[in-house]
Amino acid sequence: MGVGKTAPMALPTEHRQVLIASLPNGRLRTEDFEVRTAPLPVPGDGEVLCRTVAITIGAGQRAGLQGSASYAGAPEAGRVMGGTGVAQVVGASGGRLRVGDLVWGQTGWQEYSVQQPEALTVLDPSVPVSDHLGVLGLNGVTAYFGVTEVGRVQAGETFVVSAAAGSVGHVAGQVAKALGARVVGIAGSAEKAAMLVDVLGFDVGLNRNDEDFRTAFRAATPERIDVYFDNTGGILLESALFRMNQRGRVVCCGVVSQYDTSTPGPGPRGVPGLLVNNRVRMEGFLVFDFEDRYDEARRQLSAWLSAGSLRALTTEYAGLESAPQAFVDLLAGTTSGTPIVQVWEA
Amino acid sequence: MGVGKTAPMALPTEHRQVLIASLPNGRLRTEDFEVRTAPLPVPGDGEVLCRTVAITIGAGQRAGLQGSASYAGAPEAGRVMGGTGVAQVVGASGGRLRVGDLVWGQTGWQEYSVQQPEALTVLDPSVPVSDHLGVLGLNGVTAYFGVTEVGRVQAGETFVVSAAAGSVGHVAGQVAKALGARVVGIAGSAEKAAMLVDVLGFDVGLNRNDEDFRTAFRAATPERIDVYFDNTGGILLESALFRMNQRGRVVCCGVVSQYDTSTPGPGPRGVPGLLVNNRVRMEGFLVFDFEDRYDEARRQLSAWLSAGSLRALTTEYAGLESAPQAFVDLLAGTTSGTPIVQVWEA
Repeated sequence: MGVGKTAPMALPTEHRQVLIASLPNGRLRTEDFEVRTAPLPVPGDGEVLCRTVAITIGAGQRAGLQGSASYAGAPEAGRVMGGTGVAQVVGASGGRLRVGDLVWGQTGWQEYSVQQPEALTVLDPSVPVSDHLGVLGLNGVTAYFGVTEVGRVQAGETFVVSAAAGSVGHVAGQVAKALGARVVGIAGSAEKAAMLVDVLGFDVGLNRNDEDFRTAFRAATPERIDVYFDNTGGILLESALFRMNQRGRVVCCGVVSQYDTSTPGPGPRGVPGLLVNNRVRMEGFLVFDFEDRYDEARRQLSAWLSAGSLRALTTEYAGLESAPQAFVDLLAGTTSGTPIVQVWEA
Repeated sequence: MGVGKTAPMALPTEHRQVLIASLPNGRLRTEDFEVRTAPLPVPGDGEVLCRTVAITIGAGQRAGLQGSASYAGAPEAGRVMGGTGVAQVVGASGGRLRVGDLVWGQTGWQEYSVQQPEALTVLDPSVPVSDHLGVLGLNGVTAYFGVTEVGRVQAGETFVVSAAAGSVGHVAGQVAKALGARVVGIAGSAEKAAMLVDVLGFDVGLNRNDEDFRTAFRAATPERIDVYFDNTGGILLESALFRMNQRGRVVCCGVVSQYDTSTPGPGPRGVPGLLVNNRVRMEGFLVFDFEDRYDEARRQLSAWLSAGSLRALTTEYAGLESAPQAFVDLLAGTTSGTPIVQVWEA
């Protein structure tokens, strides 16, 4: 997928948007969204009109639909679903942006959006859009800072990541590997577990739904765990806590086991007793905490991409109307890597 | 309670010890211990014979009786109960220790013990023995490093401590107060809660058994919590997690709610979701991690003691045979401050 600069185009008068039809109650369904046609928005002074090229979806957005439980703010039925995307500038009244520029921003789930130029990042059009939204997007940057700044993984340490085939997990494991750690990934199927080793170069891939998972997990961590990068919470977090080394670090990045429900379960046993006995640090973070250092992360991730030590994994969907299905699939664990919904093929 | 240097004394041929009679199953009972008379131990080359003056008991020792659940190593029925005490050297064959020296070490629950000189700390005999075992002992040093190094409390922040009238808690709150924090203590009775404010100078004292505790807790933390110093785990930890500020820190020091049972409960709800959303750091520590800095802590705590900004709180018991009752009381929450069992009145 690539987008070159194009000549100014004739603009339509209407465009499509995906709305939150109703706040989900329990497991997310595609029926919680609806597609509608709306008049094309008109940019005000100093604003730019953007045509969405592709969007991505993060599992954390499910928590956003649960209301106050999330950092994403209060959701509301009838609103356009929010989200991160890559877009092309199709209308600009001077300023630093030009028609044809490829940009990254909060496009939402819609074909066109009006943006403040300062909220957009201009992108290198020679890089695939799926990389901009995946390994170099918020997923990749989240993985980078989680591993380096929160987990502070050292060469020779044992690094374990859950939801390892996911958008953040597949980058986190590769970053830890690039930094010299022994990397164990936990994924939701035997196929994904094999892929972690065969395609991404992890040392071990485990299927959390395997009957013998607990035994396999113990066998895969003979020197216990120094850094556990947690994308799931729940029972996997509990299992990892019982395997932590002294002065181990638990990077709390996401809680995918708890997102797709209205009634989160109890916390992991062993908190806080195991933290005390083993002097474990558990720390939550959001990628936004590192906003002034995104460039640093992207430079390093790009270098690894070029060197072949980082591989991008995506699951692609065609058409804006497939976004709800992509979201449902993401939460059900049937996607791999970064979900990319292509909205417009240039 | 004070011990001066005494002239060499005639030694008995026997002494009393408190043994672990049986590993506790459920709530600790005094019957889990027994007193026996044993021959006086004989020091080997380079060892010293010590007469125990007083001992203290930490709630964490209950976990030690639960086997592998603790840092204290595997316990065993028939062994002398371990513990920290102040003793006087009564037999020494040269070296840096002299007969009459007051020392601090792992005396165990017994009247006499044989010690390696390098395992003993020589004490200032002008300081009360109860201070050596309390505010300047492991309790006080634990509180000091928990507040300063793990919690990193800053002036103006809101600091909350559970088991606030306990041996570690009453020092932790006063240390945070001395560093300029607003201090809220949670204790197990209305009397203790009042004492926190009236005697120790906390800003607020709360009774966790009060019917309106949740409302009072919220009212006492209008700007939420920056540092929560957790001695209890369980429901209080859960309540505090829901009140943490962004970038708040949870100091995991003890788990008294879980010690006196064979079946620990589930972990707190909100782990890890709240840690992620609020970027909270939860970190366990043991005082032994700071062993090379005990002197620094004791100097600062002594200075606060002299200045009157730190008050020592103790509950004293007379006679070695009262140690099991002191332990049971400590776990039941009926003691205040540091429990001190006086073994020998000089």
